[in-house]
Amino acid sequence: MKKSIYKTVLLLGLLSANFGASAQLMQWKEIASGVWKVSVGKPEAYNLLTASGAQPNTNALKNMGTTGFPLDQNEISVQLRDGKTYLRFPLDRGEQLYGFGLNFQTVHQRGKILQLHMDHYGNKDNGRTHAPVPFYVSSKGYGVFVNSARYINVYAGTAVRTDSKNPPLLQDRNTDKNWQAHPYSDAVEMLVPAGGVELYVFGGPSPMEAVRRFNLFNGGGCLPPRWGLGFTQRVNRLYSDKDVQKEALEFEEKGYPLDFIGLEPGWQSKSYPCTFEWDKTRFPQPAAFVKDMLSKGVRINLWTNPYISPEASIYPKIAPFTGSHSVWVGAVPDLTIPKAQAIYWGQFDKDHVSIGVSGYKIDEVDGFDSWLWPDVATFPSGLSAEQMRQTYGVLVMKQSTDLFRKHNRRTYGLVRASNAGGVSLPYVIYNDNYSHEDFITGLINSGFSGTLWTPEVRASKTGEEWLRRFQSVCFSPMAMINAWASSTKPWTFPEVAEQIKEISQLRMRMMPYWYTEFAKYHFEGTPPFRAVNLEPDFKTELKKELLNANLEENPYAVAVNKEIKDQYMAGEYLLVAPMFTGQTSRKVVLPKGKWYDFYTGKLVGEGEVISVTPGLEKIPVFVKDGGIIPMMPVMLHAPQPNQKVDIEIRHYGQKPAQYKLYDDDGETFDYEKGQFSWRTITVARQANGEWKGTISNPENGKPNTVGNVTWKFMTP
Amino acid sequence: MKKSIYKTVLLLGLLSANFGASAQLMQWKEIASGVWKVSVGKPEAYNLLTASGAQPNTNALKNMGTTGFPLDQNEISVQLRDGKTYLRFPLDRGEQLYGFGLNFQTVHQRGKILQLHMDHYGNKDNGRTHAPVPFYVSSKGYGVFVNSARYINVYAGTAVRTDSKNPPLLQDRNTDKNWQAHPYSDAVEMLVPAGGVELYVFGGPSPMEAVRRFNLFNGGGCLPPRWGLGFTQRVNRLYSDKDVQKEALEFEEKGYPLDFIGLEPGWQSKSYPCTFEWDKTRFPQPAAFVKDMLSKGVRINLWTNPYISPEASIYPKIAPFTGSHSVWVGAVPDLTIPKAQAIYWGQFDKDHVSIGVSGYKIDEVDGFDSWLWPDVATFPSGLSAEQMRQTYGVLVMKQSTDLFRKHNRRTYGLVRASNAGGVSLPYVIYNDNYSHEDFITGLINSGFSGTLWTPEVRASKTGEEWLRRFQSVCFSPMAMINAWASSTKPWTFPEVAEQIKEISQLRMRMMPYWYTEFAKYHFEGTPPFRAVNLEPDFKTELKKELLNANLEENPYAVAVNKEIKDQYMAGEYLLVAPMFTGQTSRKVVLPKGKWYDFYTGKLVGEGEVISVTPGLEKIPVFVKDGGIIPMMPVMLHAPQPNQKVDIEIRHYGQKPAQYKLYDDDGETFDYEKGQFSWRTITVARQANGEWKGTISNPENGKPNTVGNVTWKFMTP
Repeated sequence: MKKSIYKTVLLLGLLSANFGASAQLMQWKEIASGVWKVSVGKPEAYNLLTASGAQPNTNALKNMGTTGFPLDQNEISVQLRDGKTYLRFPLDRGEQLYGFGLNFQTVHQRGKILQLHMDHYGNKDNGRTHAPVPFYVSSKGYGVFVNSARYINVYAGTAVRTDSKNPPLLQDRNTDKNWQAHPYSDAVEMLVPAGGVELYVFGGPSPMEAVRRFNLFNGGGCLPPRWGLGFTQRVNRLYSDKDVQKEALEFEEKGYPLDFIGLEPGWQSKSYPCTFEWDKTRFPQPAAFVKDMLSKGVRINLWTNPYISPEASIYPKIAPFTGSHSVWVGAVPDLTIPKAQAIYWGQFDKDHVSIGVSGYKIDEVDGFDSWLWPDVATFPSGLSAEQMRQTYGVLVMKQSTDLFRKHNRRTYGLVRASNAGGVSLPYVIYNDNYSHEDFITGLINSGFSGTLWTPEVRASKTGEEWLRRFQSVCFSPMAMINAWASSTKPWTFPEVAEQIKEISQLRMRMMPYWYTEFAKYHFEGTPPFRAVNLEPDFKTELKKELLNANLEENPYAVAVNKEIKDQYMAGEYLLVAPMFTGQTSRKVVLPKGKWYDFYTGKLVGEGEVISVTPGLEKIPVFVKDGGIIPMMPVMLHAPQPNQKVDIEIRHYGQKPAQYKLYDDDGETFDYEKGQFSWRTITVARQANGEWKGTISNPENGKPNTVGNVTWKFMTP
Repeated sequence: MKKSIYKTVLLLGLLSANFGASAQLMQWKEIASGVWKVSVGKPEAYNLLTASGAQPNTNALKNMGTTGFPLDQNEISVQLRDGKTYLRFPLDRGEQLYGFGLNFQTVHQRGKILQLHMDHYGNKDNGRTHAPVPFYVSSKGYGVFVNSARYINVYAGTAVRTDSKNPPLLQDRNTDKNWQAHPYSDAVEMLVPAGGVELYVFGGPSPMEAVRRFNLFNGGGCLPPRWGLGFTQRVNRLYSDKDVQKEALEFEEKGYPLDFIGLEPGWQSKSYPCTFEWDKTRFPQPAAFVKDMLSKGVRINLWTNPYISPEASIYPKIAPFTGSHSVWVGAVPDLTIPKAQAIYWGQFDKDHVSIGVSGYKIDEVDGFDSWLWPDVATFPSGLSAEQMRQTYGVLVMKQSTDLFRKHNRRTYGLVRASNAGGVSLPYVIYNDNYSHEDFITGLINSGFSGTLWTPEVRASKTGEEWLRRFQSVCFSPMAMINAWASSTKPWTFPEVAEQIKEISQLRMRMMPYWYTEFAKYHFEGTPPFRAVNLEPDFKTELKKELLNANLEENPYAVAVNKEIKDQYMAGEYLLVAPMFTGQTSRKVVLPKGKWYDFYTGKLVGEGEVISVTPGLEKIPVFVKDGGIIPMMPVMLHAPQPNQKVDIEIRHYGQKPAQYKLYDDDGETFDYEKGQFSWRTITVARQANGEWKGTISNPENGKPNTVGNVTWKFMTP
């Protein structure tokens, strides 16, 4: 690993910004290829990376090659004052910022004031969210990460210093019609309420490479089991074993895919707070039930929140290791304490994982603020309520994943809180909001924060809404219906039941593509779902619009960003542009190059804005020139480990192309020991002008589940 | 002054709540009648009371008599951890909480989680508001005040300790339909991010007495000049002197009252940022203009924000005393530094106050967050950005009031930020929201936070809305139109122009009542505008309603408070129940006792809920049994100092009554030196059953502006 030592000395007291401050000597150290670290002040021992246990994938980082420190170090400032750490990073004119956690209404973050604070998203991008990740990416091709489990205040290009070398224009509002409510700011400033912190800078040179470095530094993205990428139904919260078996049978008979069923609170003998024990009236024989479902190709996922009922059998043992305050009268285990972990996960192992349960949906680890322990709470480990809150989601993800690892079975579940360091943990975030539009913006932003997000389908007012939401969720990390309250099924709206079946079968057919794209998340750090802004040479210029010139309603004449926040990339090649209820047509902004219709292979445009009218049955999906999409036949359940499956390889556009198809057993952690393979797919024109595809031979002794290969050249 | 020493020792480490904490020895000291103080840890030298310079009115407190310490001291807990102070105060079942600053959507605060943080109200009562006052009042008749200029986290009966002696019910959500999303909590907990703090407890025995003690402890409420209680019009932001003179003439000719005109940004040569200098194109001769207006009985009030343009003449001198960050490219004066004060207010004195300007509207001292200096800013005094932000409104109010005091002229103006300690400063809070309903709830809550609030009228879509808003503002601390952008006038909607004139004339006629009620604010601490919840024996039981049982839309089945938040008390006797656009009738909850219609004197009900249908021209106003309302003839401007004015004294209901009418010169601070008088009005039935009223003789050598007295017995 190449190491560079940089030194920056910031002098104290020269600038008006420095009253009473203690400036910091900064020695940036390249700790992995294109990753620099500095410790300032006295960083706390407990941080986002210790909570998650994330280990850098230094080899993968090395393979990305070298790059220079992407910022002017003299323009980075760190000061310690009042036991707090004050950070400043430079910003260029025209530079755009992405990230700062899982936002739901905006993609561009420049101009935002945020407090990164674990909470349920409250319809405002103010830093309170399910993944308040202190990481941002610049359109200039670098990333910055503040490794602190504290509530961090962020001024993302809003704060203007009187001594700025790039000051904003002085304007007179009385006479200047172009007066700006938000003067130009040349810095990102942050306040970390701790007496020191670890800082990381990730090089590019592109924004995508900065994101990849961040992800790889945190261990690389998670690789779900194959079945995790199938379809999942969460059933009514009070269903019994019989109800669940009946519902699975209906899926099978009607021809709807189903890989796992989620049981909601009623599987537990008590909920809110929880016992983590089966309710013996609804599930008299849990082991037999889980086994029976598995024999039908359907796994069981269990809802829980972590709050322990005083009537739970583990309560007396774990009580000494719980916090000062309860959540719904349930004790909060201090999951940083090994004894607490052993008691807690011991129960999960004994009653769930050991009998074949496949995973969890871990609810309410984010907040809302009004459910969770207060910031005045204390924990026996001595960690503060704030630190515990910022990392609790990461702790439960990490520790439950380790439990499955012990059984050498991968898991894939749902969680409502994550943070930096969580990228390698196989959980998808969801929440209680239900705006389809916000859900898509969340999906876009998940790619900037090392998280996965599902725009879950719950209920709908109309068949149209049902289908539109369903189409989106089939192009997301977890294709699911959450019917905990509504009891809806895929076929609940008969007028769209066939279209629902078709799109859910398409989801299954695309499994080889999804699985490979997740492998790239793991091995290369590339988010499978992400913003078009990460596409090469995507135009980052951001226009502002004065939507309302009426000073009565908009007294500061605030202009808003014109953003692209309703379309996203799904894997290497696909651009997905969901339709929302009521829309019959929509605009799609195509990145550079030629783009083709996913369904027909026809050229739709090239680096331009197009308008599409796809009809109700289709979600607009476009393929990059030279796109290769490996598909399998319709199956209602994911293939078994090592089951051979035929592959249809589609090619789109005019460019010859190469694609690496990932393969492993799909269920165990053996891939971590090298038990995986990549096979190279090549498509090129022959001398006669016709397309020809080839696939490299399987490696000896490596997994190979590819059966017959057929080719489909979508664009002649 | 009676002094009592109480001792409370909280032992460390006995309870699970105490991990790693340092418990505090508390010695509550009675520092004024019914006011107890304790200092814990190392309180910061700069706090809300030092910023405001508030001095207790110990005599008035003494006159309130003695009362016992209202809480069980053993149940008050203070801990120091991590350089922060953790507070806990007990709560009884059924106890209700009010206050925690200027809230706009809710009156009852039990069950809230807040961070008291100076900001523009953002449509959510979360602690971010124009007056984030760390003071609460209990329905049990006491108040608690945390004297800290920090962002304080408040858990107002939400946090549940596992070791609580009054634990909530354990419920199972699977089976219990009455499961509660918010379990019972027996404490108010607070987190003060400072290593110590001063705490105050105010005795009752009633909630009103606790509020009065809080206000008197902070110096008593402000006493505006008489003209401040007349009518004020804020004119278009780019008006010239001629435009203003023309508008004042129109008021006069049409018969609409007008006491002061507010000039918006265009009076300054530059705005956003400001020069504080007259624009010589629009106002070539400011002194002559102000004098001319004064001669017509119309005072001038000047808009400003405090942010200094680099082009202001004071800029070079004041620059060394400004903060590290600018606001709209304007420098932020560090107004805690005497040199900065001298330069800054020197300019205000020279160009404004000395030529007769009557007061200010001080904008944008609250936020929004995106305008103000960031929390990373530094100030030359060494105070933190947070401390400066929490108190900046108080600093500008205090220092501008002192400037007028130097001229022995009272002022009355507008401000967008206040805090504890601001009660004696003659400013009314306003904001940029425009919900009539929220404005009324704000008016209610102002009485709990030592602030005044105006539901200002700006623009309207219809004549109905215009009139409804206008009716409300005439029963508020400042009767005003803010036409800075809309250029509306009282007569803009011809269909209601007569009704507008009538209600604005009523406002003027009631001046003796308003003035006396403000005198009671000053001398007795009684808020002139306040909640019905402060009425004696007002029923405080609060019902919860499950408005939405659909778990899809309300997943935690959260019930909401059924609150009274659309009616308020105006002075001792009046209950005002505004009508909102679209309403033709409304419900009014009458407190204990008989209530009478303000306009007719007829009995409307007794401690019951009534429904009223007042018609468009009337705002429903009700008078307490035995109510006395002194009124004067219609005048278009407030009386001159010592001008004799005839008084009509109205009596309502069946009870004989006494009222003390306040009098002074109405303009100077001489009342602080004893130059005021109270005259006793008595109404009783004679032997023949007829009402008879008497008024005590004026005191020798004291102000007396009462001319002829007539009597009107509204209820025969």
